[in-house]
Amino acid sequence: MALVVLKFGGTSVGSIDRIKNVALRVKKFFCEGHQVLVVVSAMSGETNRLLGLIDELSNNRHGREQDAVVSTGEQVTIGLLAIALNNIGCRAKSFTGWQAGILTDEVHSKARIEQINAESLKSEVEAGVIPIIAGFQGLTEANAISTLGRGGSDTTAVAVAAALKADECQIFTDVDGVYTTDPRVVKSAQRMEKITFEEMLEMASLGSKVLQIRAVEFAGKYKVPLRIRSTFDEGEGTLITLDEEEVHLEKPIISGIAFNRDEAKLIVRGVPDVPGAAYSILGPISEANIEVDMIVQNVADDNSTDFTFTVHRNDYVKAKEILAERLCKLEQGSLSGTDDICKISLVGVGMRSHAGIAAKMFSVLAEEKINIQMISTSEIKISVVINEKYLELAVRALHTAFELDDKGAA
Amino acid sequence: MALVVLKFGGTSVGSIDRIKNVALRVKKFFCEGHQVLVVVSAMSGETNRLLGLIDELSNNRHGREQDAVVSTGEQVTIGLLAIALNNIGCRAKSFTGWQAGILTDEVHSKARIEQINAESLKSEVEAGVIPIIAGFQGLTEANAISTLGRGGSDTTAVAVAAALKADECQIFTDVDGVYTTDPRVVKSAQRMEKITFEEMLEMASLGSKVLQIRAVEFAGKYKVPLRIRSTFDEGEGTLITLDEEEVHLEKPIISGIAFNRDEAKLIVRGVPDVPGAAYSILGPISEANIEVDMIVQNVADDNSTDFTFTVHRNDYVKAKEILAERLCKLEQGSLSGTDDICKISLVGVGMRSHAGIAAKMFSVLAEEKINIQMISTSEIKISVVINEKYLELAVRALHTAFELDDKGAA
Repeated sequence: MALVVLKFGGTSVGSIDRIKNVALRVKKFFCEGHQVLVVVSAMSGETNRLLGLIDELSNNRHGREQDAVVSTGEQVTIGLLAIALNNIGCRAKSFTGWQAGILTDEVHSKARIEQINAESLKSEVEAGVIPIIAGFQGLTEANAISTLGRGGSDTTAVAVAAALKADECQIFTDVDGVYTTDPRVVKSAQRMEKITFEEMLEMASLGSKVLQIRAVEFAGKYKVPLRIRSTFDEGEGTLITLDEEEVHLEKPIISGIAFNRDEAKLIVRGVPDVPGAAYSILGPISEANIEVDMIVQNVADDNSTDFTFTVHRNDYVKAKEILAERLCKLEQGSLSGTDDICKISLVGVGMRSHAGIAAKMFSVLAEEKINIQMISTSEIKISVVINEKYLELAVRALHTAFELDDKGAA
Repeated sequence: MALVVLKFGGTSVGSIDRIKNVALRVKKFFCEGHQVLVVVSAMSGETNRLLGLIDELSNNRHGREQDAVVSTGEQVTIGLLAIALNNIGCRAKSFTGWQAGILTDEVHSKARIEQINAESLKSEVEAGVIPIIAGFQGLTEANAISTLGRGGSDTTAVAVAAALKADECQIFTDVDGVYTTDPRVVKSAQRMEKITFEEMLEMASLGSKVLQIRAVEFAGKYKVPLRIRSTFDEGEGTLITLDEEEVHLEKPIISGIAFNRDEAKLIVRGVPDVPGAAYSILGPISEANIEVDMIVQNVADDNSTDFTFTVHRNDYVKAKEILAERLCKLEQGSLSGTDDICKISLVGVGMRSHAGIAAKMFSVLAEEKINIQMISTSEIKISVVINEKYLELAVRALHTAFELDDKGAA
C-alpha cells in the first residue's frame, strides 16, 4: 500500500462528465489499496471568468479581494468531485486551502506556501477518507485567502505530498508525459520515462509548460517523486526522480531540447566599463518588476562595455522605454533591440561528464547556416538565442544530431 | 454617528453595474459619518447555477460538499464589492462566513447561527474599514462551511447587527417596503411606515416573501430595528420595530392581509376518538419531513373524529400516499383532499384589544358568497382557507372593509 497524491488540472475537471471520469480514476487507486489524496484546479475557463468580472469592475488588481474571488473556482471543484466520489461509494471530503491547513506568506496572487498543518488531512486519510483539496490557494497569517499564482495547483499537490511524506505525487494533465522536445515541432520526439529534477527544472523554466516550475523545485527539495501522466489515457507518463544514475544508465547525454518564443532582446552599447555599470542599466528594469532572463556582457576595446539581455516579449516595449530614459539621463550608450528571437536549450545531467556538447551544438547550427546571437550555459544546459524563423529547423536538426529521435516514428 | 448593517440581496448585486451602484450607496452612508458593515448575497442566478452543477452530477444532496460549492456565490460578491468600494476611495475588506466568525450548528444547507465571534469585525469597523460580509454562510464546529438555507443572508445581516449592537439593520431589496397586502392583487395597497416584529412574523410566514422569517425572529429576539427598503430608489421603506404603541397609535386595527397559494388540504374522516389518534395520523407525515401548517380537529357524534390539515402543495401527493398507506394499515378512516385552496390571514397586534374582528371577517366573506373551509386563529392573526379561485376577490373585499386602502390611490 502506498500513499499517493493525485493532482488534476482544469481541463481534467472541465465538465461534469470529466469530473465523473476523474472520480472513477481516483476510485481505482483507492480500490487497489492505496491511500489517496486529491488536489484539483478550477474547472477550465472558470478562473478567467472570475478575473473577467474583476476586470469589468476595475483596472487595478486588488490582491486580497481578488484572491477571495478567484479562489472560489477551486472551491467549486472540490465540492463537486467529493460529491461524485460519494456517489460511487467512496468516502470523500472537500478541503479548501484553509481547511487543509495550507499556510502561505502575505503576497497575494503570488503567495508561497510556508507550512502545511496536515493533522486533519492525516487523520482523514487514516480513517479511510479521500480528502479532495483545493489547489492554488492557502491562508495568510492575517487570516486572508491567498492564491499561489497561475499553475499553483501543482505546487499545492507537491506540498501536500511532502507534508504527508507521500510515496508519489502524480500530476494528471492533458499531455501523457514530458517529451524530448515539443512533438508539434519534431514529430519523432519521444516521451521520456524518467527525468531528474534538475533537468525538469531547466525544461520547465525554458518553456516546456507541463509543470509549474515552483512545483518542481518543491518536489526536488522535499524529495517527492513526481509523475506526469495523462488524464485521458492509461499510460505511465514520465517519472521525475532523484535517482540520477537510474535515469541515465542507458540514455543519451542530452535528455531534451526546450525552446521559448516569448523573449525579446535588448542591446546596450558603449557604457563605460566601470564598477556599477550593470546595476546602473539593469536596476531600473528590475524596479519596474520586469524579469530579465539571459544576460551577456562583453568588454569592447575602448574601455566601454556592451550588455545584451532578454526579457519577456510582453515587457519589451516597456523595458525599451525605461532604458532609453536611463541612457538619456546618463548621457551615454546607445540602445537597440529586437523581438523576433527565440531561445533553444539543450538539457541533460549527462553534460556534466561529457565535454564537447556545446561545440557539437554550435557545429549543428552552423551546418544549417543558423547564426547564434547569444550563448548562455549552466552545468546541465546550454542555451542559444537565434532568429525566431529558424526555430523549427534548429530544434529538428539538434534533436536528430543528439540522437533523441524515436526510431519507431515515421 | 450610528452603527448600521446594510444587506443587499442577489438582485441588488446582480451585475457589475449594480455592484458599482451598491458601492456608491454604501459610500454615502459612510460619508454621512456612520459606521457601516455590509452583508451581501450571491449575484442573482449564481446560486441556481451552482446547484445546477450539483444536480447534473447527482440526484442526491450532499450537505457538507453542497455547502462548499454553493457558498462560493457569496464569496465572489464580497470580493467584487470590496474592490468596487476600494475603487471609489473607501477602505473595504471582504469577509467569508468563517472569516467573520459566524459559527453555526452542523445542519448543512439549513444551518442556524449559534454564535458570532465579532472581534475582527469590530476592530475593522473601529479602524474605519467597511467589512463586506458573505451572507448565507458560516462555519460548523467540525470546521466545515455551512449554509443557512435560502434567504439566509437576511439572517446573517441581523445576526451581525445583533453581535455588534448596531443601531439599525437595513435590508435592501427590490421592493420598497412592506405593504398592507400584495399590490399586484390590490392596487390600493399601502406601504406601511412601521410594523411590529410580531406582525411581520405573521406576514412573513404567511407568504409575504420580503424577508426570511428566521431573520425577523432573530431581530425581534435581539431587539435589532430592521428596515426594509429599495436598492433602486431613495424611499424610507418600512421599519420593523419593538415599539408597539408608536406603530399603532393612529393605525387601523388590522395591519395587513397576507395570503398563500402554496398549500393543499388533506381530510381524514372516521378515526376513533381515542388518545393518540392525532399522532397515529400525523406521526408518519412528520417522519417524512413534511411540514404541516394548519390543523383542525372535530369530534363527530359517533365517537369518531375528523382531521383536516394543510401541507405545502409540493408535498401534497407524497402526504396523500403516506396517509393512504397508514389508514390501510390501521384499517380505519377515509381520506380525501384538494390542492385548489388558498389561505388568507388578517394580521395586526391591534386585534388583542379589539373583539369582533373574526366576526367581521366572516361577514365580509359571506357577503361575497365565499365559503370558508377552515379557520385558525392566534393572538394577532385570523386565517381562513377558501377555494383558490376566490383569492383576489376575498383579499380586495377584506382590504377595503378593514380600511387599508390608500385613499390617494385610484
